[in-house]
Amino acid sequence: MFYHIKELQYEAKPSRPDPVYAKKLQEVLGGQYGEISVMMQYLFQGFNCRADKKYRDMLLDIGTEEMAHVEMLATLIARLLDNTPLDVQEAAYHSDPALAAVMGGMNPQHAIVSGLGAMAADSVGYPWNSRYIIASGNLLADFRANLNAESQGRLQVVRLFEMSDDPGVRDTLSFLIARDKAHQNQWYAAICELEERENDIVVPTTFPAHLEKQEVAYDFYNLSRGEASSQGRWAQGPSMDGRAQFQYYSKPGPFGPKPVLPLAPPDVHNTMPPMSKM
Amino acid sequence: MFYHIKELQYEAKPSRPDPVYAKKLQEVLGGQYGEISVMMQYLFQGFNCRADKKYRDMLLDIGTEEMAHVEMLATLIARLLDNTPLDVQEAAYHSDPALAAVMGGMNPQHAIVSGLGAMAADSVGYPWNSRYIIASGNLLADFRANLNAESQGRLQVVRLFEMSDDPGVRDTLSFLIARDKAHQNQWYAAICELEERENDIVVPTTFPAHLEKQEVAYDFYNLSRGEASSQGRWAQGPSMDGRAQFQYYSKPGPFGPKPVLPLAPPDVHNTMPPMSKM
Amino acid sequence: MFYHIKELQYEAKPSRPDPVYAKKLQEVLGGQYGEISVMMQYLFQGFNCRADKKYRDMLLDIGTEEMAHVEMLATLIARLLDNTPLDVQEAAYHSDPALAAVMGGMNPQHAIVSGLGAMAADSVGYPWNSRYIIASGNLLADFRANLNAESQGRLQVVRLFEMSDDPGVRDTLSFLIARDKAHQNQWYAAICELEERENDIVVPTTFPAHLEKQEVAYDFYNLSRGEASSQGRWAQGPSMDGRAQFQYYSKPGPFGPKPVLPLAPPDVHNTMPPMSKM
Amino acid sequence: MFYHIKELQYEAKPSRPDPVYAKKLQEVLGGQYGEISVMMQYLFQGFNCRADKKYRDMLLDIGTEEMAHVEMLATLIARLLDNTPLDVQEAAYHSDPALAAVMGGMNPQHAIVSGLGAMAADSVGYPWNSRYIIASGNLLADFRANLNAESQGRLQVVRLFEMSDDPGVRDTLSFLIARDKAHQNQWYAAICELEERENDIVVPTTFPAHLEKQEVAYDFYNLSRGEASSQGRWAQGPSMDGRAQFQYYSKPGPFGPKPVLPLAPPDVHNTMPPMSKM
Amino acid sequence: MFYHIKELQYEAKPSRPDPVYAKKLQEVLGGQYGEISVMMQYLFQGFNCRADKKYRDMLLDIGTEEMAHVEMLATLIARLLDNTPLDVQEAAYHSDPALAAVMGGMNPQHAIVSGLGAMAADSVGYPWNSRYIIASGNLLADFRANLNAESQGRLQVVRLFEMSDDPGVRDTLSFLIARDKAHQNQWYAAICELEERENDIVVPTTFPAHLEKQEVAYDFYNLSRGEASSQGRWAQGPSMDGRAQFQYYSKPGPFGPKPVLPLAPPDVHNTMPPMSKM
Amino acid sequence: MFYHIKELQYEAKPSRPDPVYAKKLQEVLGGQYGEISVMMQYLFQGFNCRADKKYRDMLLDIGTEEMAHVEMLATLIARLLDNTPLDVQEAAYHSDPALAAVMGGMNPQHAIVSGLGAMAADSVGYPWNSRYIIASGNLLADFRANLNAESQGRLQVVRLFEMSDDPGVRDTLSFLIARDKAHQNQWYAAICELEERENDIVVPTTFPAHLEKQEVAYDFYNLSRGEASSQGRWAQGPSMDGRAQFQYYSKPGPFGPKPVLPLAPPDVHNTMPPMSKM
Repeated sequence: MFYHIKELQYEAKPSRPDPVYAKKLQEVLGGQYGEISVMMQYLFQGFNCRADKKYRDMLLDIGTEEMAHVEMLATLIARLLDNTPLDVQEAAYHSDPALAAVMGGMNPQHAIVSGLGAMAADSVGYPWNSRYIIASGNLLADFRANLNAESQGRLQVVRLFEMSDDPGVRDTLSFLIARDKAHQNQWYAAICELEERENDIVVPTTFPAHLEKQEVAYDFYNLSRGEASSQGRWAQGPSMDGRAQFQYYSKPGPFGPKPVLPLAPPDVHNTMPPMSKM
Repeated sequence: MFYHIKELQYEAKPSRPDPVYAKKLQEVLGGQYGEISVMMQYLFQGFNCRADKKYRDMLLDIGTEEMAHVEMLATLIARLLDNTPLDVQEAAYHSDPALAAVMGGMNPQHAIVSGLGAMAADSVGYPWNSRYIIASGNLLADFRANLNAESQGRLQVVRLFEMSDDPGVRDTLSFLIARDKAHQNQWYAAICELEERENDIVVPTTFPAHLEKQEVAYDFYNLSRGEASSQGRWAQGPSMDGRAQFQYYSKPGPFGPKPVLPLAPPDVHNTMPPMSKM
Repeated sequence: MFYHIKELQYEAKPSRPDPVYAKKLQEVLGGQYGEISVMMQYLFQGFNCRADKKYRDMLLDIGTEEMAHVEMLATLIARLLDNTPLDVQEAAYHSDPALAAVMGGMNPQHAIVSGLGAMAADSVGYPWNSRYIIASGNLLADFRANLNAESQGRLQVVRLFEMSDDPGVRDTLSFLIARDKAHQNQWYAAICELEERENDIVVPTTFPAHLEKQEVAYDFYNLSRGEASSQGRWAQGPSMDGRAQFQYYSKPGPFGPKPVLPLAPPDVHNTMPPMSKM
Repeated sequence: MFYHIKELQYEAKPSRPDPVYAKKLQEVLGGQYGEISVMMQYLFQGFNCRADKKYRDMLLDIGTEEMAHVEMLATLIARLLDNTPLDVQEAAYHSDPALAAVMGGMNPQHAIVSGLGAMAADSVGYPWNSRYIIASGNLLADFRANLNAESQGRLQVVRLFEMSDDPGVRDTLSFLIARDKAHQNQWYAAICELEERENDIVVPTTFPAHLEKQEVAYDFYNLSRGEASSQGRWAQGPSMDGRAQFQYYSKPGPFGPKPVLPLAPPDVHNTMPPMSKM
Repeated sequence: MFYHIKELQYEAKPSRPDPVYAKKLQEVLGGQYGEISVMMQYLFQGFNCRADKKYRDMLLDIGTEEMAHVEMLATLIARLLDNTPLDVQEAAYHSDPALAAVMGGMNPQHAIVSGLGAMAADSVGYPWNSRYIIASGNLLADFRANLNAESQGRLQVVRLFEMSDDPGVRDTLSFLIARDKAHQNQWYAAICELEERENDIVVPTTFPAHLEKQEVAYDFYNLSRGEASSQGRWAQGPSMDGRAQFQYYSKPGPFGPKPVLPLAPPDVHNTMPPMSKM
Repeated sequence: MFYHIKELQYEAKPSRPDPVYAKKLQEVLGGQYGEISVMMQYLFQGFNCRADKKYRDMLLDIGTEEMAHVEMLATLIARLLDNTPLDVQEAAYHSDPALAAVMGGMNPQHAIVSGLGAMAADSVGYPWNSRYIIASGNLLADFRANLNAESQGRLQVVRLFEMSDDPGVRDTLSFLIARDKAHQNQWYAAICELEERENDIVVPTTFPAHLEKQEVAYDFYNLSRGEASSQGRWAQGPSMDGRAQFQYYSKPGPFGPKPVLPLAPPDVHNTMPPMSKM
């Protein structure tokens, strides 16, 4: 169960309105790697958690913090839209082309749909959807998803930081950038803990090795002509799970035969061979 | 530019048709973490690659292999649908309820839309879409996305392995499970290489630390009552980037004030205060 | 069964082309609360109607009118796109930045995909989809959906009216604004009629009160610190269904215990506790 | 900013696992009118609120409660999935067809993707997306959206109540049904308050009447042959806004002319008349 | 502008309810090639039509007929859902497994969301969306889209015909199958007329040949090892536009060089080469 | 199984960066009729092919070529984004409005998400999804889908050609335009071959004529007032399948009765008639 307090986790106040930047900022609120994604991902991982209590608790701690980030970004976007006039007429475009560019660059739904408020969508207006998130029940897999989300997310916030010269916006983003650093460190720590405890790095660690095709479990296949790919750590030396050596194949071939599918039954009305037509 | 040979990378032949299992298997072909996702993710990362040649080459190598996996799974699904009759009438349901259950459990689009062929969709029939993938230009971020994709993907194939007792199906899946192990090892290796080279683990490693709010960059906030979350590696000791100590806050509060938004201009026709109505 | 006549329900002729405004106007054609939504919502409510004949008839009357609105807006948009040149080259951007802003602000699909025609999409180009509509079979619920749709829809058309100074566009919109007023009045009337007839305001009115947790059916829980929310009609006085008194709780707590989920079976390969790993 | 406590707002414990019912229950968690929708809708209306403080507070109160409902339903679904075995083989279908039906009726993603956990999707596996919600800045419009959401939502929970005979499930649902009654009453109260204060029922109340086509603002057009629709309150008597009389037109005709669109410029490569081809 | 009459274009009355078949039938109502698709596609092509009056008229004729088909299928589906009980409890599954299979095979949204009514979605519950349709302004292109839609659509209805033994259902489908034959013939005729008039078969016929890379305009590239593809009409003889000879290349190579992309600017924070890190 | 070579099928090098054009070009990479669509459509038709070997081979040949087109367009887009600066600040907008227009017109995700790389999305940023493609198992139907895709696709590339004056861009597009001509000719040839072999033009050719409602199989219904539609080939003369005469009906009426649906069972909680309420 949740409680809300009115204070923001951190201030979210731009120095001046900027509807074009508001549109761009939507990416880290409602985009693939925005705050809604991490909030929902961590909360569902927490709600569904069947493992140790400390993992459930930690997931709900961080998930609850992400809700505060959603609130901060929604507030920041609403303020970037403060006082945006709807009625910049075409005539104005010719007398002030810079204004025209600004108005033309904003997301029209910020005016028409949300009445100068934030939306749960990304920087091209595409709505947030739950196929962005994963809660698989396997925490090593999921913590990797979380580390990835914080990595992509911080990268995007950093890019948005570079795209602004508004000290208020930059101040808020500098907080989020730091928190994303904290969360990368934390998921990284949790991953290391689990890898050590499960004594493996390959998810899931519980599948018996003799049931998989071990002969191909450490091969690298050079399928794009040119062998620059042989120069990496992935192509030679001991495998990362410490159980074998990486093997590089310059000219890999197929292991299987050509497939031939039988005809479909007549009631499916697929294409039949020349004879079979009545 | 690409070339195709008719042989499959590995055999994909079930021992008997099974339309219900065909539906389930769609998950790892066209789902969030299916083979289409990894194929498209690695190819776009490769096409867009502005970094060292060896990374571009390696991305295109593995991306090209994933195309072979798409082909194998499509073939396996088509064969699981071999000879599925359309015309199992309602009468049959009562004389053979097991048949009824089987027919009721298949994806109706396998009969109506694809004519007993595989589809680029998941196990509930939801179409594959490109918001599943990421190619950010930052390879450390993207390799984490790739490691996550292979982790979730292998987990799903393992679960599907557990759900089948067909030796042909299991043989094919055992190959994919092994290749996903290989790819987890490879992305892991590439990540380690980049972390070492960039001398940091926090993406992006190029953002100047003094521009972020360093005071909060290593804090853990206990926002879900109960302190089980203090028991993990993420709550104490040196941070994973080796630059500070983790700090655990039992009762974190807000840093910001309560936000108050100004009224919208009248032409937006938002709710106005009691007085302002004409 | 339907018939079409060539005349528009009302004139839809802008005074001059304006491809940027065409993009914005798409919102009320193919957006969440655009004319396609109300057309499809009312028609499906009508086709599925199992209640009194007069409701079915009325739904099909208004649904059929909305088809005329779809036609009007499609025509208006096509005309706003009249004579849009594709070949405004980059050079022109520098000699006429206002033109550049105009061309940059249009929806590129109006040129590339629809060949200067209207699309069944919204102002950011997101396609219309049927999850925008509801036909539940419970008419009191559905008429509330309809009243909401006409309220949101009229609000959006009004905002678009404010965004234009083209007398032709404004004339067409003034018609739609009036019809949305008519429809708000009509759904409001239908709602009142049903509330009176069913002698309740809570949907569904047919669920026996003793089966629900009546103790909490009129409570307001103050979960966001600060008690400004106690100042509204919803926090005190008789409930709107006239069956109880509103009750305001300043410091509500949980009624349930902490949930603990059991481990998943091993074949699911979720994270297991430290001991259980083999 | 938000805080979480471990206790559930209300108990969510089924008497026995039931994976088929788990699939159905997803509708009111992650469907069009599920708890995620109301949670996100109220929170965004609150975050964006530019009107009186009491509305913002009340929106955040109820939005925060809905988060608790998301948690309860996620927990309930996870428990309905407790101990679901993955490995019910085809052989079992023939020996126990009822089991076959049960297993065939579950959502395969509950096994393959979420590892026996709840998902942010509906009963057919379609992911939640933010086009389900609205926060328009006009509270009268939005409160109607909210009343509608609680009406559709309660209707769906009631239907799910009828579909279960599990006392634990029914107990949880009886709580949600009561809370949806409370919320219907509360939004209804807020609507009445706003209608009174704005002295109108037509959203937006701020658009000047002389700018709309008043001649058609109270007409009902009988466009579906048969006049049963004349029997309702919407067809006669004073309009609900008290400003005019409803008018019923048996044989309405068009007000506009036939539209004719000009040819597109040649560089668009649309179909041209016979002559114009080179 | 449109008018509706209460009569169906053709009877739509199943001999008995069948909720599982109702689910399947949704495909041809709200699927990729269902009746909503052709209705919307033809209407938008008509509304946007800038070419000869006869094409506009014909598009609106057929589009208006498709609306009647939407109505027929919605009615048929609603009737297939007549009297479906919600409360088939788990106990019943064991005493009547056939009933269990039937109930497990229905679309849960038909019970929970639409209250035993048709939905604008397909057979796996995926909502109809407007990316299914095209109205490009080039009628030769669009009539090919229409011929394809009627071909795929008739194929799907035929498959559904094979899947039913209900004489009422089959009667309705036999009407739709015949109308799809009529429409295939009609679009075929319109295509022939336009190809003759434009004196070409390649869309768009108006692009000057000297601006395209004519050297490759009639080549077939054998990129999938094995030359079975040389046996078709497409590999030899005069091209279908009569302007050249088909040319078959057994071992086609690239025409372009290897691409190398430059580094991104530092403010993008992409991966940089080892040196460049500060 | 697939192999990749580093060379592009054809050069893809713009004369200068142009981020606005990069946004537009996305349409033919990741849009409804872009290269990803044809690649996936042909590959899935090939993988699923149960008919003659030569069709399977040809589908995989052309599908494999389309992969090269995906690569070319991704490369072209990445290069159009070369050196795009993120940090064009608001101040610059006023000193250089043309620059402002350019920056305002680009897709923000090209900066924030993909780090100056191509995305698998269209010109409004909507992600590619697999409901764009069809592989039905009936090749005559599918080859019509393919001919349509190449027709719409070539039309869009031609429009983009008209929108650019960059010789490098035009060179690449002139290659794609020629290949789309080749593919239109090839699918046309394959269609003719199949129509001849199956001795019919109506898909599916295998459905027995006596099972369909033959009385309406060649009728044209004039449902949009005005008889311009009688002037086309579709309205008179022998039908295109040579089996009957087209028949034009000026005033078509319904063949079916008015539908009346029974009430829903009480446990569905639909609207009930006045009496039935308890």
